[in-house]
Amino acid sequence: MPDSKSSSLSAHLEKVLPGTDRQSLRDSVLPTLLHSITSIAKCLRSSLNIQQAGSTNNSGDNQLNVDLATNEIIHAAVRTCPSIVAASSEEDDGENEVMHDDSSNQSHGPGAETYTVAFDPLDGSSIIPANWTVGTIIGIWDCETALNEYPKEKQIAAILGVLGPRTTAIIALRVPGSTPACFEVGLSDENSNIEVLRPEVRFAQVKDGMTRYFAPANLRAAHQSKAYASLINYFIEKEYTLRYSGGLVPDIVHALVKGHGVYISPVTEKSKAKLRKLYELAPIALIVECAGGKAVDPSNGKDILETSIETVDDKAGLVCGTSEEVDMVMKSLAASEA
Amino acid sequence: MPDSKSSSLSAHLEKVLPGTDRQSLRDSVLPTLLHSITSIAKCLRSSLNIQQAGSTNNSGDNQLNVDLATNEIIHAAVRTCPSIVAASSEEDDGENEVMHDDSSNQSHGPGAETYTVAFDPLDGSSIIPANWTVGTIIGIWDCETALNEYPKEKQIAAILGVLGPRTTAIIALRVPGSTPACFEVGLSDENSNIEVLRPEVRFAQVKDGMTRYFAPANLRAAHQSKAYASLINYFIEKEYTLRYSGGLVPDIVHALVKGHGVYISPVTEKSKAKLRKLYELAPIALIVECAGGKAVDPSNGKDILETSIETVDDKAGLVCGTSEEVDMVMKSLAASEA
Repeated sequence: MPDSKSSSLSAHLEKVLPGTDRQSLRDSVLPTLLHSITSIAKCLRSSLNIQQAGSTNNSGDNQLNVDLATNEIIHAAVRTCPSIVAASSEEDDGENEVMHDDSSNQSHGPGAETYTVAFDPLDGSSIIPANWTVGTIIGIWDCETALNEYPKEKQIAAILGVLGPRTTAIIALRVPGSTPACFEVGLSDENSNIEVLRPEVRFAQVKDGMTRYFAPANLRAAHQSKAYASLINYFIEKEYTLRYSGGLVPDIVHALVKGHGVYISPVTEKSKAKLRKLYELAPIALIVECAGGKAVDPSNGKDILETSIETVDDKAGLVCGTSEEVDMVMKSLAASEA
Repeated sequence: MPDSKSSSLSAHLEKVLPGTDRQSLRDSVLPTLLHSITSIAKCLRSSLNIQQAGSTNNSGDNQLNVDLATNEIIHAAVRTCPSIVAASSEEDDGENEVMHDDSSNQSHGPGAETYTVAFDPLDGSSIIPANWTVGTIIGIWDCETALNEYPKEKQIAAILGVLGPRTTAIIALRVPGSTPACFEVGLSDENSNIEVLRPEVRFAQVKDGMTRYFAPANLRAAHQSKAYASLINYFIEKEYTLRYSGGLVPDIVHALVKGHGVYISPVTEKSKAKLRKLYELAPIALIVECAGGKAVDPSNGKDILETSIETVDDKAGLVCGTSEEVDMVMKSLAASEA
């Protein structure tokens, strides 16, 4: 629930999203979803014993007790927002109409705002037992379904919740008629306060002498792909700094917070695409683009957000981060393949 | 302060450290230091804005506001333990006698237990802004100073506090007359409860087909060192899984929790040793050894704990983890140099 103490967030949202036509997004959807990330952080913190739930999700992954609990936290939040009409999660079977709580008694008449959310409530299961930072990924679509729509225009907001020693989130907004924005907030679970930590998150220009970061996902694929192997050698020769946690959210957020970096999840013949377009790629691509970076599909070099998503299971690889670095990586991969 | 609710920890400590001659270690030193890690987690969580403190520590590193605050948390805890007579921290100028609180009115007569603690209150400054998991490292020495003593015998306990979405810690005990132990606890900040999550933390035997993890620190050094470069190629050829956060505590704890892995912080001509023996290497080496692994100095292949520490600034490299993997790495580095 939005809280009167979220003054720092409210003021910032008024600034980046002025006017009345996105009132529900600004005053209900975004604060409610951010507060659900605070609840997820509390849930994880009190779940000292991480256990298998004994079930599997749609993709056949074993579910943890915390996968189920955090999924329900976001669904419960969504049910309090009248303008969210459809929702899907990586833990669900597909996209479903939202059955709103009776208590959410705001009318949702014709002409009102209508949103669909798609989310991965707890990304990074493999590193949860070691207590590494994990994340929540949410995409917000300006339509009644996220499927078969044009992501570049229809996905108008995204949130990456960072569940670490602190609870933080990076939010991107690209609402038609407003200037795109990307900013970082801190979520306090003591008083439900949401404080803007960085009013503008932006990738910096590449300059000589700066520390350059790279995050090579699925490094095993370098054994099967000469192109990927020679790219890794390039990073070592140029003395890039390695940061790779294996958690998609912390890996992307590291580059965003440092203002520099490139993340590569390659697709090779033997190593299929792993990242879900709807729950992972689309929201991350919006965040990266709104921060002035680039997010492309390594199989065709196109922007991730250029291609519509046909099913909740669509997958692809990812190269994203500082634009110059993404271009360099794509050139290098293409050259080695030639 | 030890809490009556820490029943799970108390019972476990009674089991691994029976008898009366280590009563202060068991009932005061260990619970107090673990509770200080709970306090550090709370401190980080409420420090949404991470800032430079404007000061530098002994090694010339810029200090963050949270470096200073967490350092004082452990010092304050130490002052309540009569048997801790000396303490030093990475943020201090050196080892100092402990001035106990007046309120710690337990007598500390002759023949009583006498400990020295050495700690790094907040390891991993570079990844704090991105909200990645960081850690606290504490070594407990069975003597009146940690310097110029034989670490293998005199450092009898160590704690790695893991400050992530949850707060956990791995504790190693190698007290003369007791069986060495390594176990994991969960620290709840709601009720100060300390729960034993894994009564035994142990590296597994290497078996065909198991996922193998590697954490290559300072990968830039592979550009200067053929030995390190060919080792990295070996890991890629053998399709090891990469996990490297750049935080010493999470990187070591990942291997401990997975039951498998190897961490390499090499020393090359151009790239000097980076890890402090007293605050980082010695406690980590004890934890790794008590979990059935190995921790060696890559410059001479000796166990880290074989060499006494002369000054608080002594540094070295590190290869640690599953014994077979450590041996393989050392052989590979030696072969390439020959």
